Amino acid sequence: MKSSKSKVLHDLAGLRLIEWVRTCALEAGCERIICVVGDANQDVRDAAEALSMEIAVQEPQQGTGHAVDCAKDAVGDFEGDIAVLFADTPLITTQTLNSVFEALTEADVAVLGFEANVPGAYGRLIERDGTLEKIVEAKEASAEELAVTLCNSGVLASQSGRLFKALEQVTNENSKGEYYLTDVIEIMRKDGGCARVVRGHEDEMLGVNSRADLAAANASFQTNMRNMALEDGVTLRHPETVYFSYDTVIERDAVIGENVVFGPGVIVKSGATIHAFCHIEGATVGEGASVGPFARLRPGTDLGPDSFIGNFVEVKNTKVGRGSKASHLTYLGDAVIGAGSNIGAGTVTCNYDGFFKHKTTIGDGVFIGTHTSLVAPVTIGDGGFTATGAVVTKNVPADALAIARVDQVNKLGWAARFREAMSKRKAKS
Amino acid sequence: MKSSKSKVLHDLAGLRLIEWVRTCALEAGCERIICVVGDANQDVRDAAEALSMEIAVQEPQQGTGHAVDCAKDAVGDFEGDIAVLFADTPLITTQTLNSVFEALTEADVAVLGFEANVPGAYGRLIERDGTLEKIVEAKEASAEELAVTLCNSGVLASQSGRLFKALEQVTNENSKGEYYLTDVIEIMRKDGGCARVVRGHEDEMLGVNSRADLAAANASFQTNMRNMALEDGVTLRHPETVYFSYDTVIERDAVIGENVVFGPGVIVKSGATIHAFCHIEGATVGEGASVGPFARLRPGTDLGPDSFIGNFVEVKNTKVGRGSKASHLTYLGDAVIGAGSNIGAGTVTCNYDGFFKHKTTIGDGVFIGTHTSLVAPVTIGDGGFTATGAVVTKNVPADALAIARVDQVNKLGWAARFREAMSKRKAKS
Amino acid sequence: MKSSKSKVLHDLAGLRLIEWVRTCALEAGCERIICVVGDANQDVRDAAEALSMEIAVQEPQQGTGHAVDCAKDAVGDFEGDIAVLFADTPLITTQTLNSVFEALTEADVAVLGFEANVPGAYGRLIERDGTLEKIVEAKEASAEELAVTLCNSGVLASQSGRLFKALEQVTNENSKGEYYLTDVIEIMRKDGGCARVVRGHEDEMLGVNSRADLAAANASFQTNMRNMALEDGVTLRHPETVYFSYDTVIERDAVIGENVVFGPGVIVKSGATIHAFCHIEGATVGEGASVGPFARLRPGTDLGPDSFIGNFVEVKNTKVGRGSKASHLTYLGDAVIGAGSNIGAGTVTCNYDGFFKHKTTIGDGVFIGTHTSLVAPVTIGDGGFTATGAVVTKNVPADALAIARVDQVNKLGWAARFREAMSKRKAKS
Repeated sequence: MKSSKSKVLHDLAGLRLIEWVRTCALEAGCERIICVVGDANQDVRDAAEALSMEIAVQEPQQGTGHAVDCAKDAVGDFEGDIAVLFADTPLITTQTLNSVFEALTEADVAVLGFEANVPGAYGRLIERDGTLEKIVEAKEASAEELAVTLCNSGVLASQSGRLFKALEQVTNENSKGEYYLTDVIEIMRKDGGCARVVRGHEDEMLGVNSRADLAAANASFQTNMRNMALEDGVTLRHPETVYFSYDTVIERDAVIGENVVFGPGVIVKSGATIHAFCHIEGATVGEGASVGPFARLRPGTDLGPDSFIGNFVEVKNTKVGRGSKASHLTYLGDAVIGAGSNIGAGTVTCNYDGFFKHKTTIGDGVFIGTHTSLVAPVTIGDGGFTATGAVVTKNVPADALAIARVDQVNKLGWAARFREAMSKRKAKS
Repeated sequence: MKSSKSKVLHDLAGLRLIEWVRTCALEAGCERIICVVGDANQDVRDAAEALSMEIAVQEPQQGTGHAVDCAKDAVGDFEGDIAVLFADTPLITTQTLNSVFEALTEADVAVLGFEANVPGAYGRLIERDGTLEKIVEAKEASAEELAVTLCNSGVLASQSGRLFKALEQVTNENSKGEYYLTDVIEIMRKDGGCARVVRGHEDEMLGVNSRADLAAANASFQTNMRNMALEDGVTLRHPETVYFSYDTVIERDAVIGENVVFGPGVIVKSGATIHAFCHIEGATVGEGASVGPFARLRPGTDLGPDSFIGNFVEVKNTKVGRGSKASHLTYLGDAVIGAGSNIGAGTVTCNYDGFFKHKTTIGDGVFIGTHTSLVAPVTIGDGGFTATGAVVTKNVPADALAIARVDQVNKLGWAARFREAMSKRKAKS
Repeated sequence: MKSSKSKVLHDLAGLRLIEWVRTCALEAGCERIICVVGDANQDVRDAAEALSMEIAVQEPQQGTGHAVDCAKDAVGDFEGDIAVLFADTPLITTQTLNSVFEALTEADVAVLGFEANVPGAYGRLIERDGTLEKIVEAKEASAEELAVTLCNSGVLASQSGRLFKALEQVTNENSKGEYYLTDVIEIMRKDGGCARVVRGHEDEMLGVNSRADLAAANASFQTNMRNMALEDGVTLRHPETVYFSYDTVIERDAVIGENVVFGPGVIVKSGATIHAFCHIEGATVGEGASVGPFARLRPGTDLGPDSFIGNFVEVKNTKVGRGSKASHLTYLGDAVIGAGSNIGAGTVTCNYDGFFKHKTTIGDGVFIGTHTSLVAPVTIGDGGFTATGAVVTKNVPADALAIARVDQVNKLGWAARFREAMSKRKAKS
């Protein structure tokens, strides 16, 4: 990755690679997750611990079989099924992992395979009579075996005791001097065990070994999300310009315009419209609400039904009530806004004094005039009104007008004199 | 579509599907449009009536032949040619429909066909000696017929009397128990009539049955528009990032940057530049004008020659005179601006008082200072000047300066004391 | 091109076509560049002169050989090697041109060829025993010659004297009546000379003859740049949405979000993040800095390490110190900002008085309040503070607070009375 950060900590659609695999395991019902990690990847270790994984150190690295064996102490007397996953293979679905575990009802070891478009250097899964006979590395495969397109994803599952028992018999007597996990298949079979292949889709098996791979995995994920959204009754005017996070939820009859980016934590409810050029994360957009174009919703935004957030408006940690509007050039941060209020262009909630963040409370049916500065903490009561250009530092009672303004003076002829003077100066300069 | 809205009311590049077909028919010179609709689609009926179509109700739905027959009463004693179009097939061009009508000078019935890349389940058009012998459904086709790649679009045209006479003979004696429009071909031929195929391009025949289809139709339309713009002498830096509406007009030597969205009603004149990230609808951009990046032009915008609209600027229902500029962070709504004026950053026309919209008039050679609020209705005379931060509520005479400002006071040491106090408070919290 | 501008003056990723070729020649060590141009293209002549090229007029145009011969007087007594390049073929790399020159150590004339995917109408390079025997026009090629996929790019190089001597023997006795440059191959060979082919990649040979070609060349360039960035350790979340200029530099572990446009002159340093929807030109983004979403950096922007430019912020000709922030809705122009300062939402540097541009200086640890207008020239000392809504026209000493504000007055019941009155008026209207 040419990065100061370990590969599996890179982000894919709002989750780090290691979190993708963790989420898959948790959703498939795994009770424990043991992360096998080398000494060099302290950042991975820290991240895994923060994600409540157990840690098993593999040092030095002596192959995939050795890696799994390094987890043996951590596994301890656990007697259930174990799946071996790879933190750089983020797109395997929970459904697929479930299938692998389910195959253990009929087999001693289950291997996740896939039909490869270009089998190339992948290990081949050689089946006979519906069971997996062996896994052959491409380099060591016969011509007949090379013609097989069913390939090894690397993922396998087995009952804990059986797996570690087989691993004991794996040797490093091969050209690389490594202990290969794949050797357990033949070992178990010789021991009378049964191995089976579970088939997944090649797209799920995409391994990330470079930033180009990461971008490819993201592209594959996006294509899936776009297709699912369309099938769920969401209008994407130009699907290829909408970018989802791992957890984006968009309800039926929502309309998403061109060039919309969803960060994590977004729910767009039915009938809402997200116009072009929006950046939305950690936000809920209510039914029939309208957002953008050129809007940014940041975490903690909760837009009520039929509310309206217009162009060049930023909303953060703010609840906007039903039908309220902020149409232009506004920053709403740390605020609560009631229903049916209108926030004028150029309004800013001054929520930060350089040390603390403060809250702004705006009631129902409020009219905030253009260029109002709401110096938090401050409350505008229901039906309150602020005059254009007011710096509002004190609470405004319900139905009151807050005004802070200097009377306009017109200096006749001033502009003509100014232009004359400046033109002369310009001519000299 | 998984939608609460009927399929043919979904939008495609600024027009609803039903409007695409209507526009095609009107442009091909159709005098009357009869919309055949079922009881369930009241929204389609309402829309069709609002579009001045006549309505014929088909209830229950008993096939395409039955649908056309349902229009018989509405057609009445009309003796001209009739074309049968489908409201979910939006991309058929006027030129193609004209060809179908023109074919009636030599034939009793003309069918629009196309060479299909993947003929699959399409009905096949079986020609003999340059005439159409029959239309065979794919299910009922022989191997030889299946090899034919000339497929049926569904669109056909015939003289009114002939069409309805043939329809009388169509039966529902088939597996589906429906009356098929396609049966009129053989009926007319048996009656000594001549049927002909008119060939169109497969891209035009794209039928919309899902949101994915709708997106595909939009993609096809956009590709066409981009290619036409390039051929017309428009520079699109990255054509695939520019989104057109059905009626977008861009003149020669205009330059369009990355990620530009054109809503309906846009004209960009020669030599104008639209920079990246612009959203433009209902607007005319004059010769040599410059817009964006990050500009939004809304309906009623009319930018004069060599005018300049910069970043984070919104313009609505506003005329901007030759060479005038609004460079940053501004909202211009319901305004008229003369020539050679400069609108400062953070200017807002306060056009809405919560009840009414009011107009702002700015003359020639005006200088609007930063953070000016123009409280409409208000007029700034030619050569007028507004001081930074002014809330302008009264008209400004020509060549006058409007000022509304409190003198700045510097409180020495205040910031140091404030920081000390706040730091202590922060330490405690 | 259907343009009022000559083809080779159209822009490709920040350079005009003629500049691409010029840059390639200069980087390959060419000491002189002679531009052969017709009378009709005065704009090309002007541009070439402005780029310090020498001019040779070709009038009338009588073929490629004639064009080169027109440069003979300009070449004068120069005895070195000459390469013939085409101003509408922008993507040839310096490395490739170097290879062409290097081939002259072993050959009298070197021709740049490429393996064409679709050889079509390209001239074919017929090799024998590792040397170039002849160049055959597709029209005049035998079936065997047409099967050759090694095609002529048009680019060739030779020693000056040899080239012009050979050109003297080129005749226009062909169907077009033109003097072909390619004829010099056979002429030199007959004269005992040796011709060699240098192979380049087809992508480099893309000639621009329409705006569609220009867009295709741009797409090809972008693909290269994206791949190189990924290989260099840059994260591009969605590579296909990032647009580079010819000179964009992005360091390792920088992260670039969706829809980012880089104009010329950009350097993004290690660990910086450019969020989605940014437009950046002529700017340096320091290590660990964060920009966007929805930010515009214009020429002369220099963002220090760990600085922060947020949404709807424009920065021009401004230096921002380490860790300083401008988070929302701000225009910074012609300013210098120290370290650790915070620029509030809605801040505008009023750098233009309609005649002159002035400078704003902001020290370290400054807090600029919301909606501050900084009327330049003005200086805010270290630790200074400006109160919300201040129009700052005078310098602010270090640690002082600048305030310019009218006290807020709450008019009780005003809003209720206003609404009543307006509702009545609305009912009447």
